[in-house]
Amino acid sequence: MAVTLHVCITCRANRRLAEGEICPGSRLLEAARRAAPDGIAVAPVTCLSACSRGCAVAFAGPGRWTYVYGGIAPETDLGALLEGAALYARAADGIVPWRERPELLRRSVIARIPPREA
Amino acid sequence: MAVTLHVCITCRANRRLAEGEICPGSRLLEAARRAAPDGIAVAPVTCLSACSRGCAVAFAGPGRWTYVYGGIAPETDLGALLEGAALYARAADGIVPWRERPELLRRSVIARIPPREA
Repeated sequence: MAVTLHVCITCRANRRLAEGEICPGSRLLEAARRAAPDGIAVAPVTCLSACSRGCAVAFAGPGRWTYVYGGIAPETDLGALLEGAALYARAADGIVPWRERPELLRRSVIARIPPREA
Repeated sequence: MAVTLHVCITCRANRRLAEGEICPGSRLLEAARRAAPDGIAVAPVTCLSACSRGCAVAFAGPGRWTYVYGGIAPETDLGALLEGAALYARAADGIVPWRERPELLRRSVIARIPPREA
C-alpha cells in the first residue's frame, strides 16, 4: 500500500461519551475500513495528540508530505475524507492543489510535515 | 543526522509584520541553527500548515514518532525547544515520557504522527 490513512481511535471528539458508547474515533476507523478504496491502507493509531480537535486523522506515504486533519465527523465526513485520501494517493509528493481539495480538508488541516529525505 | 528539527520559516506568529521585520519563523530558524547541539539537524520548511499556532516546528527522525509543536517564541523558548529536541533524539521511538518533557512542549503540542512502517 503506498498511502496510509491513520485514524486516531481514542478520539472522543471533545466530549464525554455515554456509558457503553463506542468512541467516535473507533467508529470512524471502522467506517473508513469498510469504504476505503484500493491503495489506501487504513490504520488505527492510539492518539495523534490532537485531542482538542478530534476526530483526528493523518495521511502519510513514502516520499510524501504528511497531513494531519481534525474535527472529522464519522457520520458525515467519511466521503470527503476518502475523496481527499484518494487525491493524496495520486499526488506523488502528497500535495493536492488547494482548489482540488474537498472543502472539508481545507478547513480541517491541523499541520503538515515534509517528507523524510531519502 | 538522526533527528531533524523542522522550523517553519513562514510563521508570522499570528500577527502582521512591521515593514522590513524578519518573520519570527526565520528568526527562530537562525537561532536554532546557531544553538543546536550535535545530532540535531535544523531544517527550514515553508509552511507546516499550522499558521494559527505559529511559530511552528516539528521533530522527526527515522523510526520515530513525529511531533509538531506550535506557539514557539523565538526570543524565549529556544532553550526549552532544544532541550526537548535532545530528549527526542535520545528516545529510540521519539516518545519522551510526559514528566520528562519541558513544560513548553507539554502545552504546545499540535499533533504527532506514528513512524512509517519499515
